[in-house]
Amino acid sequence: MNVVDLIEKKKHGQALSHEELVYFAQGAAKGTIPDYQLAALLMAVWFNGMTPEETRDLTLAMVHTGDVADLSGIGGIGVDKHSTGGVGDTTTLVVAPLSAACGAKVAKMSGRGLGHTGGTLDKIESIPGASVDIPMDRFIRQVREIGVAVIGQTADLAPADKALYALRDVTGTVDCLPLIVSSIMSKKIASGAGAIVLDVKTGSGAIMHDLESSIELARAMVEVGRLADRPTLALVTGMEQPLGTHVGNALEVKEAIDILAGRAGGRLKEVSLRLGAMMLVACGTARDELSAREALEKALASGAGLEKLRQMIAAQGGDARVCDDTSLLPQAERKIPVRAEKAGYVVSMDAAKIGLASQRLGAGRLSKADAIDPAVGLVMNVELGDRIEAGQPLVTLYANEKGADEAEALVREGIVIDEKPAQPPKLIYAVVRPEGVERF
Amino acid sequence: MNVVDLIEKKKHGQALSHEELVYFAQGAAKGTIPDYQLAALLMAVWFNGMTPEETRDLTLAMVHTGDVADLSGIGGIGVDKHSTGGVGDTTTLVVAPLSAACGAKVAKMSGRGLGHTGGTLDKIESIPGASVDIPMDRFIRQVREIGVAVIGQTADLAPADKALYALRDVTGTVDCLPLIVSSIMSKKIASGAGAIVLDVKTGSGAIMHDLESSIELARAMVEVGRLADRPTLALVTGMEQPLGTHVGNALEVKEAIDILAGRAGGRLKEVSLRLGAMMLVACGTARDELSAREALEKALASGAGLEKLRQMIAAQGGDARVCDDTSLLPQAERKIPVRAEKAGYVVSMDAAKIGLASQRLGAGRLSKADAIDPAVGLVMNVELGDRIEAGQPLVTLYANEKGADEAEALVREGIVIDEKPAQPPKLIYAVVRPEGVERF
Repeated sequence: MNVVDLIEKKKHGQALSHEELVYFAQGAAKGTIPDYQLAALLMAVWFNGMTPEETRDLTLAMVHTGDVADLSGIGGIGVDKHSTGGVGDTTTLVVAPLSAACGAKVAKMSGRGLGHTGGTLDKIESIPGASVDIPMDRFIRQVREIGVAVIGQTADLAPADKALYALRDVTGTVDCLPLIVSSIMSKKIASGAGAIVLDVKTGSGAIMHDLESSIELARAMVEVGRLADRPTLALVTGMEQPLGTHVGNALEVKEAIDILAGRAGGRLKEVSLRLGAMMLVACGTARDELSAREALEKALASGAGLEKLRQMIAAQGGDARVCDDTSLLPQAERKIPVRAEKAGYVVSMDAAKIGLASQRLGAGRLSKADAIDPAVGLVMNVELGDRIEAGQPLVTLYANEKGADEAEALVREGIVIDEKPAQPPKLIYAVVRPEGVERF
Repeated sequence: MNVVDLIEKKKHGQALSHEELVYFAQGAAKGTIPDYQLAALLMAVWFNGMTPEETRDLTLAMVHTGDVADLSGIGGIGVDKHSTGGVGDTTTLVVAPLSAACGAKVAKMSGRGLGHTGGTLDKIESIPGASVDIPMDRFIRQVREIGVAVIGQTADLAPADKALYALRDVTGTVDCLPLIVSSIMSKKIASGAGAIVLDVKTGSGAIMHDLESSIELARAMVEVGRLADRPTLALVTGMEQPLGTHVGNALEVKEAIDILAGRAGGRLKEVSLRLGAMMLVACGTARDELSAREALEKALASGAGLEKLRQMIAAQGGDARVCDDTSLLPQAERKIPVRAEKAGYVVSMDAAKIGLASQRLGAGRLSKADAIDPAVGLVMNVELGDRIEAGQPLVTLYANEKGADEAEALVREGIVIDEKPAQPPKLIYAVVRPEGVERF
């Protein structure tokens, strides 16, 4: 097989065969196809796209360039949840224990944060003692025994994705639907997921800025899941503002605990319950989303969800007392309110800028090697649509030594106040199932 | 400047600025832009094209990545002629001396043959003693004194083209109009041409297989020549069969001499006269193509053209007696007729296969390092439209030790004989001038 033939085919809008996509993925993973030829092919894919079958074949070809986790020992269908990346988006820490409390087997391999979005692993590690570096056999035993575990990638999952992602990043081919789909889905499938629930963000802080592209991405992933025999459902949710009120690692853990303890609600809770219902359906634990939702609300009210989180933290070596006393989480030295300079209505937010403000305080990374500060971040004191007065705090920065000035400037840039109110955006835009798209 | 921004612009169909194209060409020439980013940008150009201004700016940016020949010493406007590559296409050896005999200053830096097309340098070197490795000062003096010189590239002309061409070859981006235009025109301009005449081939043996693409290429090159202040004219000619009857190095020299001596005619002579007339007009030696044609025919009839060739060969160290006795050229050991297996009409030819047959006999190169045999090649005994009888020779192979069987097979594959006659194709399809396209 010759990669120039593949480039020519894709350039002229033809579909690549299963064998050709295996050759491409293997060539990327092993480095046997030079980067310049991969780059030309990626750009041809950017222009001419891929059929659902090509996207499936590429996804599975990428899966098989590395290890595939064997989760047959967990005692059920493992369900995984993936967010395309949001700000103040800690649904995993709410929904993973809550779904497990309803009988799901939540076996999640997660990633670290980069750029303006946080990473679940960093959040868990902000709990004193908690580890995400857990060997495979202990991971499987933990899921079998308590129903939930969230760990870092131990194995060499989908190395083709690693190679292609690095190349896409520097060749203008990140914003390409079949390449995004195969990147996300190959990692989920390689990490052993039997069923997958996706939270596709839309809006300023999201990978897809407009709704139709976000729905298209969700549809493509659900379709690849179906074609690859991994039941997949997707929620399309707004990222016009941070999802939760808390942004930062320990701060987000605190908000998750507050929700599981019944002390907090709002957008993060609602999206978590929606995702949880879809997870219970996707893995076959619930018959439909309505009965799943009832079960989740019961587990929330009874404290069973919080108990699962407590078990998970303990199993992963952490101080589970944080579930009862969030002041045991790392605390920032300074709380700095960023006050409104004028009265009016909060008419728009730039979630990416708010995420970057938290990053500048030390909660996130600029490059992979950066250390993060678990205590810092920010708390949103307002949301879109709120009427505010001059001098009222918009955001409270939780700062240690660095970044407060820069963070304040970013927050001020990111929050727009106007005399006239604007309609707040929707939280849930669509649910995408193999049967079709339900819009809200 | 950041190359990813250039890729994004071109990906979204925007034009690149002069500064951006300089950055791109310099990055390609110096290797400061990695190949994978060049490849992504080339593929984006394949899809979204370039405006005439972008193509001019890229061409001139490529020119200035290397040396630019200073031909101010030749005593006039140097005119260059370029063919996009044909089989049995030795117009240079006819038209360069003939135009010089009419007063033009023909200063030509030429290339070597590769693939199925021959190279002018290889043809000249088949003349005993003749050299194309001539230093710049001697080249300029020769043009000033006798009006014509054809040499190899001595300087480092348009190194960006060398880098980009090598990359295009392996990334499926050869067949891209602005990239072809900038590749050809940058080398012509860097080699000092003041006026340019192009012979754009169309048909099976040509870079562009269909007429409209060939005319489009010709228009784009004429337009870039105009924008770059190098008067440029183009002829679009058929490559449905070899242009001359002789294919191979010494064999093509023989045909050129036969034409200049008035012993041969046909397609090669007609295209040479057309190109010559355009050359005389482009460099300002003649007022119009009609009077130019008259001057050329006079120089042919008087033997002035052959005399110029004699002078050129002598000046380049060759045995000028070949002009009077072509048997002094290298001779192949065997002449092997390839005979028709059935009677009928010659309805189609694959010029590329006939070129490859000659290459297999040793007249051409498979890779740049290959040595060539000056004596071998083939002579066409028939042309499109001819009525032939079974057993009649179609082609005579001029062979030494190697390749005769393979060449015979290629010739048989390349020549189609049918019971019914077919209309022979046109020789001249169009003349492209800055004012417009004249079709025939």
